[in-house]
Amino acid sequence: MIFAKVVGTVISTQKDENLNGKKLLLCKEVDHKGKPLSTYHVAVDAVQAGEGCFVLLSYGSSARMTESTKNAPIDAVIMAIIDDLQITHSTQGRK
Amino acid sequence: MIFAKVVGTVISTQKDENLNGKKLLLCKEVDHKGKPLSTYHVAVDAVQAGEGCFVLLSYGSSARMTESTKNAPIDAVIMAIIDDLQITHSTQGRK
Amino acid sequence: MIFAKVVGTVISTQKDENLNGKKLLLCKEVDHKGKPLSTYHVAVDAVQAGEGCFVLLSYGSSARMTESTKNAPIDAVIMAIIDDLQITHSTQGRK
Amino acid sequence: MIFAKVVGTVISTQKDENLNGKKLLLCKEVDHKGKPLSTYHVAVDAVQAGEGCFVLLSYGSSARMTESTKNAPIDAVIMAIIDDLQITHSTQGRK
Amino acid sequence: MIFAKVVGTVISTQKDENLNGKKLLLCKEVDHKGKPLSTYHVAVDAVQAGEGCFVLLSYGSSARMTESTKNAPIDAVIMAIIDDLQITHSTQGRK
Repeated sequence: MIFAKVVGTVISTQKDENLNGKKLLLCKEVDHKGKPLSTYHVAVDAVQAGEGCFVLLSYGSSARMTESTKNAPIDAVIMAIIDDLQITHSTQGRK
Repeated sequence: MIFAKVVGTVISTQKDENLNGKKLLLCKEVDHKGKPLSTYHVAVDAVQAGEGCFVLLSYGSSARMTESTKNAPIDAVIMAIIDDLQITHSTQGRK
Repeated sequence: MIFAKVVGTVISTQKDENLNGKKLLLCKEVDHKGKPLSTYHVAVDAVQAGEGCFVLLSYGSSARMTESTKNAPIDAVIMAIIDDLQITHSTQGRK
Repeated sequence: MIFAKVVGTVISTQKDENLNGKKLLLCKEVDHKGKPLSTYHVAVDAVQAGEGCFVLLSYGSSARMTESTKNAPIDAVIMAIIDDLQITHSTQGRK
Repeated sequence: MIFAKVVGTVISTQKDENLNGKKLLLCKEVDHKGKPLSTYHVAVDAVQAGEGCFVLLSYGSSARMTESTKNAPIDAVIMAIIDDLQITHSTQGRK
């Protein structure tokens, strides 16, 4: 899963019928500290993520494993809102 | 899902039988503002996207989740035409 | 799907039994105009693509959706030979 | 599969119900010698990996093939803790 | 599929039970001529590939399509040992 911040909404009228009622959110990828990276993703919201939220995105077939996304032609889902990260080990050097 | 603009059509006579009747569109990846990026994708059209349209592409097994693409050996589908993007949160800085 | 040109054949005797009788082709990725890029791919041929052909490759689980590739441990298939590309929209600028 | 080192924990209260009881670990990608690379991944732990562990991550639908991750909307799993690597062949030059 | 050379073995005691009895090999990606590239992959061996072998790796769900890898949480498999490559077409210029 990757980190992202919800920054907007995608409006679409003409879309596959399995997308009806699903919220397509514009997400900006961020690093684990919340610092913005350059990539944007569009993901379906499965956890009522408000805009500005720091979230986790899951990709591929796994994106269809939530109640609201099953059978939909979507490849990214917001499946968790992040409360906090606890970094307990040095991120430098060998094991 | 990623953003793209439909820029052309791919013509193929000799193809897998599950592709018969499907429209293969040439799409140029764009950023969330519609600015062209360098990558091209070929995707099947599931939403009657006209050429020039600003669309969303879904990748992988998810591309087979529309009525018109199920069981086809294709890994990208146009599943929504974008009307508008509402950016409601700063895309800079932390949460 | 991505564009490629068939440039050779991969010979393998010791392989998974589901690969028996399948043709493994060496493909060089090209851009939409047929200009060679630097990446090579090995893909199973599902459309009798001759060497030198300008083809489309489909990746991932979708590569197993042809009659000749189902159940095989392969992640790329040639599923169409390209006759022509019709570019009908400017590939520059916004929608 | 790729190499990673477990460096922290992701805390999330509001998440998809299939994630309940699963441990989301922050992993830093490392090379085969354990040297840190720049990418971070979030993966579900399927093998009781302690923090600081040198582990293997599996991606995509394969991440759902463990007892603890089946049916969950997750795209990365820690499926092995690495004890050792035995490099028995030169990593330089042709076969 | 991509080209790789088997260069070592990954030893793991604490791992998902579906990995028992499977050989995890360290593979260095190579180009089609066997020249080493910089990326390493860990893949399960499905074809008794000896170390030093020039092999093909298949990724994603396709990696689970061999007898020895079905249902395992692995995303890469060695599914063929390469005997030879026959390059029969120029890899330069257009079709």
